Amino acid sequence: MAERFANRKDIRFLLEEVFDVNSLTQYDYFKDHSADTFNMVIDTVMKMGSEMMYPVFQEMDKNPPRYEDLQAKVHPAVRVFLDECGQGGWLNADWDYTDGGQQLPNMIKFLCWFVFSASNYALGAYAQLTAGAANLIREFASPEIKEKYLEKLYTGKWQGTMALTEPDIGSSLGDLMTSAQATDQGYYLIKGKKMFISGADTDAVENTVNMMLARIQGAPAGAKGISLFVVPKYRVNEEGKLEYNDVNCDGIEHKLGYRGCPICQLTMGENNDCHGYLVGKPGRGLGYMFQMMNEERINVGIGAVAKATAAYYAALEYCSQRKQGRRLSEKDQSLPMVPLIEHPDIKRMLLMQKSIAEGGLSLALQVSKYLDLIKVLPEEEREKYSLLVELLVPVVKTYPAEAGILATSAAIQCLGGYGYCQDFPVEQYFRDIRIDPIHEGTTGIQGQDILGRKISLGNGKAMQYFVAEMLDTIEGAYKFANLQGMADQLLQSINELRVVTTHLLDLSAQGKVEEFLADGVLYLELFSLITIAWQWLLQAITSSTRLQEGSSALLENDRLFYEGKIYTCRYFFSYELNKIYGLAKRLTSNEPVTVEMEAKFLQV
Amino acid sequence: MAERFANRKDIRFLLEEVFDVNSLTQYDYFKDHSADTFNMVIDTVMKMGSEMMYPVFQEMDKNPPRYEDLQAKVHPAVRVFLDECGQGGWLNADWDYTDGGQQLPNMIKFLCWFVFSASNYALGAYAQLTAGAANLIREFASPEIKEKYLEKLYTGKWQGTMALTEPDIGSSLGDLMTSAQATDQGYYLIKGKKMFISGADTDAVENTVNMMLARIQGAPAGAKGISLFVVPKYRVNEEGKLEYNDVNCDGIEHKLGYRGCPICQLTMGENNDCHGYLVGKPGRGLGYMFQMMNEERINVGIGAVAKATAAYYAALEYCSQRKQGRRLSEKDQSLPMVPLIEHPDIKRMLLMQKSIAEGGLSLALQVSKYLDLIKVLPEEEREKYSLLVELLVPVVKTYPAEAGILATSAAIQCLGGYGYCQDFPVEQYFRDIRIDPIHEGTTGIQGQDILGRKISLGNGKAMQYFVAEMLDTIEGAYKFANLQGMADQLLQSINELRVVTTHLLDLSAQGKVEEFLADGVLYLELFSLITIAWQWLLQAITSSTRLQEGSSALLENDRLFYEGKIYTCRYFFSYELNKIYGLAKRLTSNEPVTVEMEAKFLQV
Repeated sequence: MAERFANRKDIRFLLEEVFDVNSLTQYDYFKDHSADTFNMVIDTVMKMGSEMMYPVFQEMDKNPPRYEDLQAKVHPAVRVFLDECGQGGWLNADWDYTDGGQQLPNMIKFLCWFVFSASNYALGAYAQLTAGAANLIREFASPEIKEKYLEKLYTGKWQGTMALTEPDIGSSLGDLMTSAQATDQGYYLIKGKKMFISGADTDAVENTVNMMLARIQGAPAGAKGISLFVVPKYRVNEEGKLEYNDVNCDGIEHKLGYRGCPICQLTMGENNDCHGYLVGKPGRGLGYMFQMMNEERINVGIGAVAKATAAYYAALEYCSQRKQGRRLSEKDQSLPMVPLIEHPDIKRMLLMQKSIAEGGLSLALQVSKYLDLIKVLPEEEREKYSLLVELLVPVVKTYPAEAGILATSAAIQCLGGYGYCQDFPVEQYFRDIRIDPIHEGTTGIQGQDILGRKISLGNGKAMQYFVAEMLDTIEGAYKFANLQGMADQLLQSINELRVVTTHLLDLSAQGKVEEFLADGVLYLELFSLITIAWQWLLQAITSSTRLQEGSSALLENDRLFYEGKIYTCRYFFSYELNKIYGLAKRLTSNEPVTVEMEAKFLQV
Repeated sequence: MAERFANRKDIRFLLEEVFDVNSLTQYDYFKDHSADTFNMVIDTVMKMGSEMMYPVFQEMDKNPPRYEDLQAKVHPAVRVFLDECGQGGWLNADWDYTDGGQQLPNMIKFLCWFVFSASNYALGAYAQLTAGAANLIREFASPEIKEKYLEKLYTGKWQGTMALTEPDIGSSLGDLMTSAQATDQGYYLIKGKKMFISGADTDAVENTVNMMLARIQGAPAGAKGISLFVVPKYRVNEEGKLEYNDVNCDGIEHKLGYRGCPICQLTMGENNDCHGYLVGKPGRGLGYMFQMMNEERINVGIGAVAKATAAYYAALEYCSQRKQGRRLSEKDQSLPMVPLIEHPDIKRMLLMQKSIAEGGLSLALQVSKYLDLIKVLPEEEREKYSLLVELLVPVVKTYPAEAGILATSAAIQCLGGYGYCQDFPVEQYFRDIRIDPIHEGTTGIQGQDILGRKISLGNGKAMQYFVAEMLDTIEGAYKFANLQGMADQLLQSINELRVVTTHLLDLSAQGKVEEFLADGVLYLELFSLITIAWQWLLQAITSSTRLQEGSSALLENDRLFYEGKIYTCRYFFSYELNKIYGLAKRLTSNEPVTVEMEAKFLQV
């Protein structure tokens, strides 16, 4: 049976059997690696997860950070964890050797985040934020900035943050107000307020490095006027000493979940002495952020997958042990009770959770593999994978975030009254996952992104590549008698997607911008269901192949595992994929009620 | 604009215009009432809600009951509220004059619960539990028991509870273990443990009266062996004095939401001195409970509706004020930002919440009206309404509970990062509502109830009456040009329901019990969407009628209100009702994956 928060067997299955991570070692960039090193990495992080992170998972929630002495006092595990991350090289494992990295594939790196998030999402976040900040500096900052800040970040000594949101500015980043005034000393004077900044200013580290968006005075309005700055809490002066940088944490928020990591309000420049160091060119701040955004959004998706996975294993364990009632077909009520898992409705809820968690993980690894191929393939072969990544990132981010709310809710339902109580972990997953449709671009933003931008990328080439990938899979599925029905269904679904997409693009062509984009979220849902169905068919093909080859040599556990995958695929196609028909009806309905209706009709 | 938690205008609309509560006063039973008394009642509870209950809504969540001195120490508001309930006669307002009641219609009574729950669900629960316990005693207990316990309950002096669940027994009540041993003193000796008992043993009251299910020693196994007892914490002795009754509260649970009201573990008979007083006949305990169950389940549904309603108004207020970005069709990013509510995706989320909340309330009032008619109509006309109540109770209970999770989640999404924070109330509604698919019969139980029992009730007569009611509404809708499309759609939906129902009943006829019942939850969802669509068409007819009649005399606010109703109806038909097509595909798919798959395929 699995660890309490993730299944090593499933990780191996996806990594080695479905996506053949070992094939990457044929390329120069990855040639020092092997199946052994990959396995060692996964085993090590699984050990960190079970020995260090999972044991404080509930404790960190019940004792969230306190705001004291102008700082967030956090759980002592944060310091220990960041140290281990630094020593293990987890924060920059995918970087080039020349940057101090280990040139690990994205597939492995993202799986590490998956394990961290599954065992303790809030704790993992400290590392993820730091890695994100370090990445931005490595990619875009000057040698001087790198020299001063980079190593401290990737060794886990200092905390990194992403400081974008302001008290009145969330999704509409182009409107932000934090200002940067040029000086003749090479730095800018930063003034303003930031909000919801995860991990900013904790007592676990001696310094915090905020990657901050601000508007240089005199810059144009809107997105073009936004620049990126390094704004540390303590700046490194010419002698290499730390100097207070006029960045203050004004307080932290009390929130629904994700409680182990504080979200902070920051004020910069109250004493007019907050130095910010420009990263890259002025006016390019949002551009730089967005170059890193794909990775951040995949991280969010993986975090949601991880929470749904851990909730699923908690529910599976409970339902396997707890007895209640008798089978529906059993009339004799004097017989002993059966485990919950014998009831079809419970099996439905478990299969639902499994299909969302493992389907979401599969897609995240699929996209990670594209990222790896982009690194190693010759220039002319990269376009395809780049377009696929762009197209699929909104799905990787949003599907597990939104479906994960339902999955963790089903985990609660599996436990009944106990699920509602804090003695069991499932209610925490339900709270923790609720942040994922909000941060790093809300679901609404993702819907506009895929419909308004991504499906038209490369003049529709992105969509063509996507459909071609799915057709490949469908062809593979036709080789197995038990998968043909599902292959047919996926084919029909692709056709539905075509009809819907054409209908919507027609609206766009007619200049009906609002009608076109109004239901981006629903379009993204339809698109996601088809994408995840594809991933399940892929897993079912691998499983069917093993079952066919294996016959006598196959271990019983493996047989059960592969059969379980095929059952889950069947579940997904019958229960989840069929939802596209309702969505398609709505999306082709020509009923622009949300565009036509004005606010006043509700405000009465 | 509305109160912060409910809209008086909508209450009046449903009560007077859609369901014509005043027509009830033509019957003898209700003849002392009038539009004025009904309005006075609603105004009074709205005042209690806004002045006493809502102000402590968040406070009671943040300072939940503590377990001290073998009791739950609760918020002082509980005592004040129960007193007001007692003085106002709210706990037994619907009872006959002869029982001390006011003969108020169910419609009014349930609306009182709605207002209490919308302003402060946890606080309202104390009263609801007490009313439920009092109802059981009034209906089934002996004059001696009534004499000792009834008045103390309905005056709010003592707390009532429903003590069903045990540590290992939840949905499978027939298996419960608490025992009752007959004595020759007229009482039974109770021994056992109960779990998740809301409101049992708090310091707000001097005594708690538990309505407890237990098995008399020697009684048959299963449901037939269960009897109902009054098991007070302090029993009333022959001299009318209170005597400790060997009932102990061992602790309270820490839970996801609904935190203002404790759920307690009880141990009875540790000193072999716990007296229980048999209510009614031995072996009839579950039967009595189930006679009250309809009311309890309507209460749960109304509680969920109330939480979704309050969350909706919080979201509406925020989205009306907070500015962010520009309209999708606006290219000029230097223009001022617009309120969130200008964005179609936000309008979609608000309409979704409104359609669930007001659709759910409409159905609850519809069923309440049936209950009122059962009270006053001659015997031969009652069957229809009794069957309709039986059929629709699973929908009244489950639809707002399940859809309400999505509605409150959408409320969080409307507020973005702020929605995730405890400064705003929406995250609490999301937590509070999550109990509703669990208590008073889980969604799984409701699904089995409607599919396995209710649709076949009276040899299918229940379904015939239901369809006839909807056809009436459809006929009414055809009179309005703007409603004809929706009338058509509802007609088609009824046909889908027929096809699905026939398919499933065929499985039952073939003896495939598990295949038949496996997807009860999905069937209930499909059934619910059609039911709520019917309720929206009903509201749209009333609104269209007013708009047609009104023309010049209509106040602008009324016009906006009625138009808003029609927009919401359009929303529901296009976004929600269309979901039945995916559900129907699944339900008629002959893919029994959740029946076929055995546990072992997941446990690997």
